[in-house]
Amino acid sequence: MHFKVRAATKEDCKEISRMILELAVYEKMPDQVKISHEELERDGFCQNPFFECLVAEVPEENTSKDGFTVVGYALYFYTYSTWKGPTVFLDDIYVMPEFRGNGFGKGLLCKVAKVGKEKRCVRLQLTVLDWNTPSRDFYAAKGAQDLTDSEGWHFIRFDGQNLDNLANEAPKD
Amino acid sequence: MHFKVRAATKEDCKEISRMILELAVYEKMPDQVKISHEELERDGFCQNPFFECLVAEVPEENTSKDGFTVVGYALYFYTYSTWKGPTVFLDDIYVMPEFRGNGFGKGLLCKVAKVGKEKRCVRLQLTVLDWNTPSRDFYAAKGAQDLTDSEGWHFIRFDGQNLDNLANEAPKD
Repeated sequence: MHFKVRAATKEDCKEISRMILELAVYEKMPDQVKISHEELERDGFCQNPFFECLVAEVPEENTSKDGFTVVGYALYFYTYSTWKGPTVFLDDIYVMPEFRGNGFGKGLLCKVAKVGKEKRCVRLQLTVLDWNTPSRDFYAAKGAQDLTDSEGWHFIRFDGQNLDNLANEAPKD
Repeated sequence: MHFKVRAATKEDCKEISRMILELAVYEKMPDQVKISHEELERDGFCQNPFFECLVAEVPEENTSKDGFTVVGYALYFYTYSTWKGPTVFLDDIYVMPEFRGNGFGKGLLCKVAKVGKEKRCVRLQLTVLDWNTPSRDFYAAKGAQDLTDSEGWHFIRFDGQNLDNLANEAPKD
């Protein structure tokens, strides 16, 4: 099936927002999504954006059953390794179920790798849920290492009141 | 013991580079460090830096046994959650062994939280090795969640030839 991977524009944010929710439903945590399309517009399409995004688009004659032409996305940003240097981090990658098996996911992933390499990135990183076997198999087939399994890295988060408490205890300047 | 947490300058990069190696030795992967202090200067102190850094500094009368006054650092950058929005990610946090137990690590962590909140971040995230019990206990005591344990998130990496292969397979524009 013909499709195009292109950089997202501000006008795509409603579609991206719709797919963020679809992905969260698949990940069994739909109530976790608090970000609106207006916030995506603000945070991704400003002077120093927090993220960049690619979308997968099909021609008008191949729209989804609900009439969508933007049917996948990859949202990423740049991080840094003090061991290896610039890194591209893929936060989300998603293809609508009815379009899977056509290389859209691979197209998005490979394009993120290409964009990252153009910015001198030497690593592409992401996180995946342990029960998400199709995705884990896909990454492994492409040569990815699971650093949680091989080196024992765990993913840690502070948020809400715990984050406020830390900030309030910061030493004075 | 008196100490100050301040934003790193380009002139601190040699000291940061020294401590990056000390931390990698502690993490049992010293041969993994490929980044020089010149690269830190280039990547962190440019127009759109890949990272920001804080250092912990002691007065001249409290130097380390080797004469260092910069005795800890926290290196971080901004990422994004499509569920919750801007996030500050703490890549490295380190205090020289002879200065531990004096609140330096807490001071660095809390200051990163404060800086992150000033940039609208609603999360502070990091990764930690499973056998690093002192650090895991420290984060847990401050209210952090271990998302690998609680939700099953695994940390995945492409690099080297695998990353090149992805980039080479990217769809044409």
